[in-house]
Amino acid sequence: MITIEDIRKAQAILKNVVHRTALTYCSVLSEITGGEIYLKMENLQKTGAFKIRGAYNKIAHLSEEDKKKGVVAASAGNHAQGVALAAKTFGIPVTIVMPRYAPLSKITRTKNLGAQVILEGNVFDEAYEAALRIQEKTGAVFVHPFNDPYVIAGQGTIGLEIMEDLSDVEMVVVPVGGGGLISGVSIAIKSMNPNARIIGVQAENMPSMVASLRKGRTERIEGKPTLADGIAVKKPGELTLEIVKKYVDEMVTVSEEEIADAILFLLEQAKVVAEGAGAVGVAALLNKLDVRGKKVVVVISGGNIDVNMIDRIINKGLVKSGRKAFIETFVMDRPGALKELLGIIAELGANVLSVFHNRSAKDVPIGFAKIELELETVDEKHVGEIERVLIAKGYEVKKVG
Amino acid sequence: MITIEDIRKAQAILKNVVHRTALTYCSVLSEITGGEIYLKMENLQKTGAFKIRGAYNKIAHLSEEDKKKGVVAASAGNHAQGVALAAKTFGIPVTIVMPRYAPLSKITRTKNLGAQVILEGNVFDEAYEAALRIQEKTGAVFVHPFNDPYVIAGQGTIGLEIMEDLSDVEMVVVPVGGGGLISGVSIAIKSMNPNARIIGVQAENMPSMVASLRKGRTERIEGKPTLADGIAVKKPGELTLEIVKKYVDEMVTVSEEEIADAILFLLEQAKVVAEGAGAVGVAALLNKLDVRGKKVVVVISGGNIDVNMIDRIINKGLVKSGRKAFIETFVMDRPGALKELLGIIAELGANVLSVFHNRSAKDVPIGFAKIELELETVDEKHVGEIERVLIAKGYEVKKVG
Repeated sequence: MITIEDIRKAQAILKNVVHRTALTYCSVLSEITGGEIYLKMENLQKTGAFKIRGAYNKIAHLSEEDKKKGVVAASAGNHAQGVALAAKTFGIPVTIVMPRYAPLSKITRTKNLGAQVILEGNVFDEAYEAALRIQEKTGAVFVHPFNDPYVIAGQGTIGLEIMEDLSDVEMVVVPVGGGGLISGVSIAIKSMNPNARIIGVQAENMPSMVASLRKGRTERIEGKPTLADGIAVKKPGELTLEIVKKYVDEMVTVSEEEIADAILFLLEQAKVVAEGAGAVGVAALLNKLDVRGKKVVVVISGGNIDVNMIDRIINKGLVKSGRKAFIETFVMDRPGALKELLGIIAELGANVLSVFHNRSAKDVPIGFAKIELELETVDEKHVGEIERVLIAKGYEVKKVG
Repeated sequence: MITIEDIRKAQAILKNVVHRTALTYCSVLSEITGGEIYLKMENLQKTGAFKIRGAYNKIAHLSEEDKKKGVVAASAGNHAQGVALAAKTFGIPVTIVMPRYAPLSKITRTKNLGAQVILEGNVFDEAYEAALRIQEKTGAVFVHPFNDPYVIAGQGTIGLEIMEDLSDVEMVVVPVGGGGLISGVSIAIKSMNPNARIIGVQAENMPSMVASLRKGRTERIEGKPTLADGIAVKKPGELTLEIVKKYVDEMVTVSEEEIADAILFLLEQAKVVAEGAGAVGVAALLNKLDVRGKKVVVVISGGNIDVNMIDRIINKGLVKSGRKAFIETFVMDRPGALKELLGIIAELGANVLSVFHNRSAKDVPIGFAKIELELETVDEKHVGEIERVLIAKGYEVKKVG
């Protein structure tokens, strides 16, 4: 079994290699939840996620002979960059197999870290199989993303750092995919502070650890796609499952909407960029956990979110909170009619983002044009006011969203 | 003159009131610039900016009688929330005058901190005049945003924290509006480490401190609107100008495009949410300063940026880097023509975000339709490839952006 001593050794090995990331008090989360909430900012770690810790500790324990043969790993995301950077630091060969449709930005970043990148398979499982074949052929060492004692001990250094900064922590909330992160963190925390509760969080769409705990053995589930792609693991590890059984007090799941809201909350209120997997702890805090009066650490495991995705989350969030609205109405198809409509909108203090016209759709009476307005608004109340005023002035209004 | 002792006193007063924000090593900025770059994360400060430090220290030094009369301030942004929270902590009355068109989110946040908010004036200067009138009428103490020894000493605690965390820092880069922040920080740093260089950064569109230094006395400039609204100050303080003359080694300015790029860089690469004013230091690092081999701290002064603004910056950045493209072309106005075009786009791996049709514009030949495609693309090269393939297949292509 992995012990706190293994994690302490890993900490000595990782010194001067990884950042000792900040544990930062979060006022807005503390106010909302009534707890004393701290964020462990592994999104500010090298490569934007915690994975370098485990990967580097694993490689550090290889024999010189094994190091010469190099390492191989399969990953569409953070593990790829973590292994690539760790191998680069040791100056050993590294091959990363990524599924063919991995985001180009992640492929480029992994290549830039000096890794040989092989694109194979349409889903992660096929890339994983390909990596195992490469290992058999070349004798390179396979670096498992979670089911490995050295990887787990490396991730556990996060738990040590939390204890150094906040030894009387009462609850630690950790994202769970394969279980490597929570295994290491829970061993470290429980060894030093057995009364602290460890809470694991999974995406509702991919609750493989939850399913495995229920069965009592590792269970492979199909699941559904999730915003938290970093923890979209279909089957946890044998080793990690045993550790989770022993040390983790509670598992919760969060919905896709809760994850999206948490990403936006962190961005807008806490000024923190988190990827989906990195935000599930905050999603749990905002929706599933009672932390009133408690000292809580939430691990923000990574920040590698595509800006396109941020863009979509912001826009959905704006519409949801009434800060953006789509309004459909009709105007007479004559000069000045649109100007009149837009005059009313302007007076009500909404900013027009775009205007669509449709003169031909089935529901448009002859002599009229259908107008769809995309508006920047203040809140739901403001949207309602715009709707009311337009109706009072004789417009037929259909709120689109 | 303000001394390091005043700043130490402020630090004692601010203990347990403000966060001791993280100084975090930034790998990506270090790699790009060849320096050793640290970010002082005042965006993670209470209310999302450093202003609480100066405001609280000011109020702490008021007589009991003055405290009873309460405080008044004028601000459209971070100073409003800083003063409101400081006053709330002391339990004293506070009035904040904001210009009538201040963003509703900021008005709401200031009200939620318990301040009486008065909306007056169309620009900041008119709100400022109104605040002075309130002060005269009520006897409340006016809390100046920068030209005040206690305010400056409060902001200076950031410099002390930097020295505690990185005593051999060689360069400190600080945003400059009225000059309060850089005054405090430079006194602290230079007193303890006289060899460290202090660099001030202003927006090219509002270089009031630069103009005042050139004239040798405080100079009022008109300037232009800037993304860095937190440092859009038309005239620096008498006091701050004298301190800047004495302690600041160099002033640089950054353009609007450089500020927008820095905001996006921080968000995407460094996982840090910064407002425009908070990002000017990074803009200077990426465009104006040579920091090779140097230990540099950049002060990220605040993170209060509207998500609508983030949205716009992301979209402009995506288009600029070829990750989003608008392509205009023509298709025959018959069934299947659009499908054919979209088939080519799909094969080339671009994702269609929207399609606009125009059959009637002057430049559209009869029997044709103009199509404008909004595409998610990989990079400039990819956009070029799409253009080339379409042209090779006989489409007339006009790249819109």
